[in-house]
Amino acid sequence: MPKVVDPEQRRGELAEAVWRVASRDGLAAVTMRGVAGEAGWSTGSVAHYFSDKEELLVFAFELIADRVRRRMEGHVSPADQPLERVRAQLIEALPLDEERRTEVRLWFGLLGLALTRPALAAAQRAAYRAWRDVLAGALTEAREQGRLAESLDPHAEAAALVALVDGLAVQAFFEPRAMGPKRLSELLDGRLRGLGVPSER
Amino acid sequence: MPKVVDPEQRRGELAEAVWRVASRDGLAAVTMRGVAGEAGWSTGSVAHYFSDKEELLVFAFELIADRVRRRMEGHVSPADQPLERVRAQLIEALPLDEERRTEVRLWFGLLGLALTRPALAAAQRAAYRAWRDVLAGALTEAREQGRLAESLDPHAEAAALVALVDGLAVQAFFEPRAMGPKRLSELLDGRLRGLGVPSER
Repeated sequence: MPKVVDPEQRRGELAEAVWRVASRDGLAAVTMRGVAGEAGWSTGSVAHYFSDKEELLVFAFELIADRVRRRMEGHVSPADQPLERVRAQLIEALPLDEERRTEVRLWFGLLGLALTRPALAAAQRAAYRAWRDVLAGALTEAREQGRLAESLDPHAEAAALVALVDGLAVQAFFEPRAMGPKRLSELLDGRLRGLGVPSER
Repeated sequence: MPKVVDPEQRRGELAEAVWRVASRDGLAAVTMRGVAGEAGWSTGSVAHYFSDKEELLVFAFELIADRVRRRMEGHVSPADQPLERVRAQLIEALPLDEERRTEVRLWFGLLGLALTRPALAAAQRAAYRAWRDVLAGALTEAREQGRLAESLDPHAEAAALVALVDGLAVQAFFEPRAMGPKRLSELLDGRLRGLGVPSER
């Protein structure tokens, strides 16, 4: 009897293997062969899922984007005010612990690789756009509730907040001590206070 | 008679060759061989200057950092107020034209490569630190002149401004149209107005 394969479960196994390889050995190790070895699969089985290295990298990127997104959603409750949701969305993207530092490192590594890989760039463009849209939505809501200045453009502010978090992550990569978790949260909260966002949840 | 070689001039030739290769063909083409070919040198002559690929990449990074720095300095006159200097320092790092878009692309590509190359990471750490220090100095001066709130921490604000510019450059890479020059300057100026910096010079 042929083995019954659950494609979702197989994809999940692959995702775990990709994460383990990338977080332990870096992006250079994310190859068809490296992932196959980690998952205990044949390279042919991996090739059933990815036609080339770029597809594999896009998968690795989506995996990280998905980890971050789930954590963001996990920290938001329906009772939260829109500005609390904004903070939850941003704080989860800062490298505040080892796991998030690894994600940030891989994220920027993938950003570098996207310079020459259009499919990877497209995935990143979509992720940034979605992130800005979610923030802009919450900021619009906050403005309608009178919690933000009328003059504030939610889309411009969303772009600036995403930029701040991204740029802080870059500096934290180079100076993990000087730009430690406390400093990073303070810098984000300082900016959010300027918008009227409470710094403690 | 042996040919007299001016080391400074030779280094300048190399720098031009590295810039041409990188801006035209990307960082993957910045190899000992690629640079030698572009400069019309032997690989051995290039090896006289760089012992390995990492040294060559550090050189490429310093070259770009130097271009940006010179442009920043060129836009600052001794008569400028400290907050005008802050704006000049930041605006030159935004991808506002083709040349600066190329620089930003290479900058982030080098950032990705630094993840696994300590000497390159050290050069980038030093560049970010120097940039923050210059900005923090100008912000401190502005505060002493009563142009900034006493409560503002110049070092924290410098880190946040560098982060904003870096993060905007990332988004502009993915969405050159939506995040065009006008939008980018507006976003920076919006933030600077919050600090009391005039948006026009």
